[in-house]
Amino acid sequence: MQIDAGRFLADLHTLRSFGAQGNGVVRPAFSEPDIAARRWLMERFAEAGLRPACDAVGNVFGLAEGPSLLIGSHSDSQPEGGWLDGALGVIAGLEVARCVAGVSVVSFQDEEGRFGVLTGSTIWSGGTDLATADALTDAGGTTFGAARELMADMVTGPVDPARFTGFLEAHIEQGPVLDTAGEEIGVVTDIVGIRDMTITLTGQQNHAGTTPMHLRRDAFAALAAYSAALEDRLRNVVTPASVWTIGHVEVHPNAASIVPGQVRFSMQWRDRDDGRLDRMEAVIRETMRDIAEARGVEVTFGRRLTLPPTAMDPALRAHLEAAAAGTKWRAMPSGALHDASNVARV
Amino acid sequence: MQIDAGRFLADLHTLRSFGAQGNGVVRPAFSEPDIAARRWLMERFAEAGLRPACDAVGNVFGLAEGPSLLIGSHSDSQPEGGWLDGALGVIAGLEVARCVAGVSVVSFQDEEGRFGVLTGSTIWSGGTDLATADALTDAGGTTFGAARELMADMVTGPVDPARFTGFLEAHIEQGPVLDTAGEEIGVVTDIVGIRDMTITLTGQQNHAGTTPMHLRRDAFAALAAYSAALEDRLRNVVTPASVWTIGHVEVHPNAASIVPGQVRFSMQWRDRDDGRLDRMEAVIRETMRDIAEARGVEVTFGRRLTLPPTAMDPALRAHLEAAAAGTKWRAMPSGALHDASNVARV
Repeated sequence: MQIDAGRFLADLHTLRSFGAQGNGVVRPAFSEPDIAARRWLMERFAEAGLRPACDAVGNVFGLAEGPSLLIGSHSDSQPEGGWLDGALGVIAGLEVARCVAGVSVVSFQDEEGRFGVLTGSTIWSGGTDLATADALTDAGGTTFGAARELMADMVTGPVDPARFTGFLEAHIEQGPVLDTAGEEIGVVTDIVGIRDMTITLTGQQNHAGTTPMHLRRDAFAALAAYSAALEDRLRNVVTPASVWTIGHVEVHPNAASIVPGQVRFSMQWRDRDDGRLDRMEAVIRETMRDIAEARGVEVTFGRRLTLPPTAMDPALRAHLEAAAAGTKWRAMPSGALHDASNVARV
Repeated sequence: MQIDAGRFLADLHTLRSFGAQGNGVVRPAFSEPDIAARRWLMERFAEAGLRPACDAVGNVFGLAEGPSLLIGSHSDSQPEGGWLDGALGVIAGLEVARCVAGVSVVSFQDEEGRFGVLTGSTIWSGGTDLATADALTDAGGTTFGAARELMADMVTGPVDPARFTGFLEAHIEQGPVLDTAGEEIGVVTDIVGIRDMTITLTGQQNHAGTTPMHLRRDAFAALAAYSAALEDRLRNVVTPASVWTIGHVEVHPNAASIVPGQVRFSMQWRDRDDGRLDRMEAVIRETMRDIAEARGVEVTFGRRLTLPPTAMDPALRAHLEAAAAGTKWRAMPSGALHDASNVARV
């Protein structure tokens, strides 16, 4: 059998129909459309001559006999997700497995993190145990344990990671780099590491008419000065691939006529190099302390989340680069997380 | 009769008992405690030999015969207000009227702006007509017209501003200036003017991992840079009494892993001089446009609210300054709005 672009696109559109809404899809992990899509995938795997399998947490596989290369991604979506995010990698695996022997396919469960971060592949790769995962809750208070019960009738048993010789995950670009440069393919060198923490600045809430500027301890003005100073100070330690973001900001009491007494905000930074993440963190903390001291504001650093950078396999990369020759391609890090970060562990 | 500090304090504490909660009071305009407090005030006015009066909008007066000096403030509170805010000025008027002939007392209604800004004194001084005011609504959708019906049985008729020879409003300091300097009395020279507008910055919402810094159009980073630049640029046009505040900030979509695509924020500035308010506004708009252009962000200036500065009467000020001699006092502007801003008009 030959790779068939029409069949590939038709499968993608069928998968899209589960939870389609506007241009995107609403197919969060363990929702009705997600479970229906996973049933449909297992049928397609069987049709392709693979053995359909579903493990206890809802990762669904199409298994080739003997040792095989695993290809796939995830079919759950963000609460409002793009129709190709994850889906492209799963259907690419299906189409390749139809045509090439020794290829298995996977759709990991809850990549989008309804219950955490990359939940299904984290458990499958031994990053967390089932008892711990079962206690995780989503924003509405549902536990992971209760959610996976909804797929209990589909479970065939565990799938041993040792049966796979490697993992390939195709993904639509989630940023503007290739698109802006008019390029077609990026061969991922590393999945970047992420650090994320909440910072709280406490100044003094005051009347915005009667408090002179020199007596203010304005928590929002301190955050603004920090954000501006950080742009200058980080320049010396980063590469063009390093990023940092203040994406979530809560101002208290958040009224036009009141000098803000407190702000809580998210500080997130990503890089492919753990040492550089450390150096960025030193600048982030030191700049915050300097600004806070200069402005009479108290700073509290919250718990820091860390996901280390993951290098992609050099041999698989070399094959991909050879295959990409003749297209417009580049080697590049992935700034977004993927199940491949977990699979790399096993 | 002599001014009696004990009686003065006892009255203040009784007024506090209407809506007392914790250290403060919950006595918004036309609430049950507010109306009960106004009934109580009218009884005290009668007891002090004044003619109690209530106009159609709930301003309550204790009227001396013939031309008189009006002393007072307001007895409604913020949703959670300080117990002396407004109350001090009303009870001060009552105690003075007990001891000095030719003094009338007032408590204006809705100074705290449940239905607008200084609602009662605005209508009384001809700043808006009753039909327009009746259509104003509070945050819950109640109209001013419906609210004032609750006091209909108390209304005695209109009170002509022409019967008063002047107005004095005593107020607790709402800022830290006197308190910080260890001073007791501030004689207000002007009530500052206020300008306030909402500014919207629209950049591009993006994934915080995959969007390189140089391709971002981060609306929050633009706001931060603007706030920092404004501190530098305004320095050349302001006096130590000028203030500006970014007090309300909404970030969209406000998530740690997403580069903010939009921010809406309040920009408010106050000064006693209208020309300086103009010069500040020019810097505010120009700085915003410069930053927006440099960062590829679109700026939308919302409707601008303006309340002009109001100078206090020089003759009354001279009397207050003479009376303050021997105390620790200073002449100073009021950064907060007061009913006196409206009364000055008539």
